[in-house]
Amino acid sequence: MSRLDSFIRRITAQRECLNEAARAIEGLDGVVFELGLGNGRTYHHLRERLPDREIFVFERSPAAHPDCMPDAEHLFVGDVHDTLPAAVERFRGQVALLHCDLGTGDLAGNRRLADFISETIPPLMAPGALVLTDPAFDLPQAERQALPDGVEPDRYYVYRWPGRTAETARAAG
Amino acid sequence: MSRLDSFIRRITAQRECLNEAARAIEGLDGVVFELGLGNGRTYHHLRERLPDREIFVFERSPAAHPDCMPDAEHLFVGDVHDTLPAAVERFRGQVALLHCDLGTGDLAGNRRLADFISETIPPLMAPGALVLTDPAFDLPQAERQALPDGVEPDRYYVYRWPGRTAETARAAG
Ligand SMILES: C[S@@+](CC[C@H](N)C(=O)[O-])C[C@H]1O[C@@H](n2cnc3c(N)ncnc32)[C@H](O)[C@@H]1O
Ligand code: NI
Ligand code: NI
Repeated sequence: MSRLDSFIRRITAQRECLNEAARAIEGLDGVVFELGLGNGRTYHHLRERLPDREIFVFERSPAAHPDCMPDAEHLFVGDVHDTLPAAVERFRGQVALLHCDLGTGDLAGNRRLADFISETIPPLMAPGALVLTDPAFDLPQAERQALPDGVEPDRYYVYRWPGRTAETARAAG
Repeated sequence: MSRLDSFIRRITAQRECLNEAARAIEGLDGVVFELGLGNGRTYHHLRERLPDREIFVFERSPAAHPDCMPDAEHLFVGDVHDTLPAAVERFRGQVALLHCDLGTGDLAGNRRLADFISETIPPLMAPGALVLTDPAFDLPQAERQALPDGVEPDRYYVYRWPGRTAETARAAG
């Protein structure tokens, strides 16, 4: 399989996971965190799928297409090592969906960053919230979810925070 | 349609066009030109599909994954405004497939570059050769080809140079 094939599989998996997560959090209050803006494609996709949610983006060096650039109130510029801990107080228990796509070519660095984020996000997550990421997080409190149909295992990682599920939230109104 | 959706369509179209072109040039002698290495995904794909062809890459600032990096004899480093005209004498009439993916965010610049390449490549192309590009080229000598099944019009542009077709070449041995 070429790197082009495997890239197409990965971003298709990412889209399917985002679509399923957008549906799954329907009954759940809370904001969305997007870690890593890049060229803004997944941010643009989330905005289209979740037009009524506040989406906050964390990015070290914002350089997306203007269509894909959050306004100043929704963009935290800086290293997530600084900006994510700084967001804990304001957003405690309010994040319904967190999507992390901070990967670079440095696999060991990606792994260390994933560990740092795994340690930092627990106080942020709303009960029943979803976390989508690649590489995997280390989240003993959360339950790893099956991926959407057609997505190969280990192309992406989806976790659900304990607490109300989207279904019970929907039932509760 | 989100920018993520439209990006997935574009690179899927690119892959389908590359696959069909790799099959179509089977009976045709000649080398492959890849304009724009980027992270090397399409180069890696072409190498996998065309293991017996020489593939020459033109790139201003090579920065691909090591797996996707051509060796020094197959990489022309520099602006194509300089490196492509410089290749005409050596490769006259010997290019069986030219793939151009030089695009950046600058649409007017992409258009001007496409016009420059349209003017530069005619002496390079082998009879019956294929040209794949986005954005479109201006090649009155060549015939625009239908895209593979399932690829939307104007996602990609494919041209066939006049002369022997791949079919007659195959028949001729
Ligand atoms: C979209 S990327 C190529 C992507 C590649 N096909 C892939 O699949 O990874 C475009 C590349 O063209 C290069 N490029 C753009 N203009 C150029 C020029 N005038 N001369 C040489 N290289 C150029 C850029 O540096 C960049 O690496
Ligand atoms: Ni850091
Ligand atoms: Ni130039």
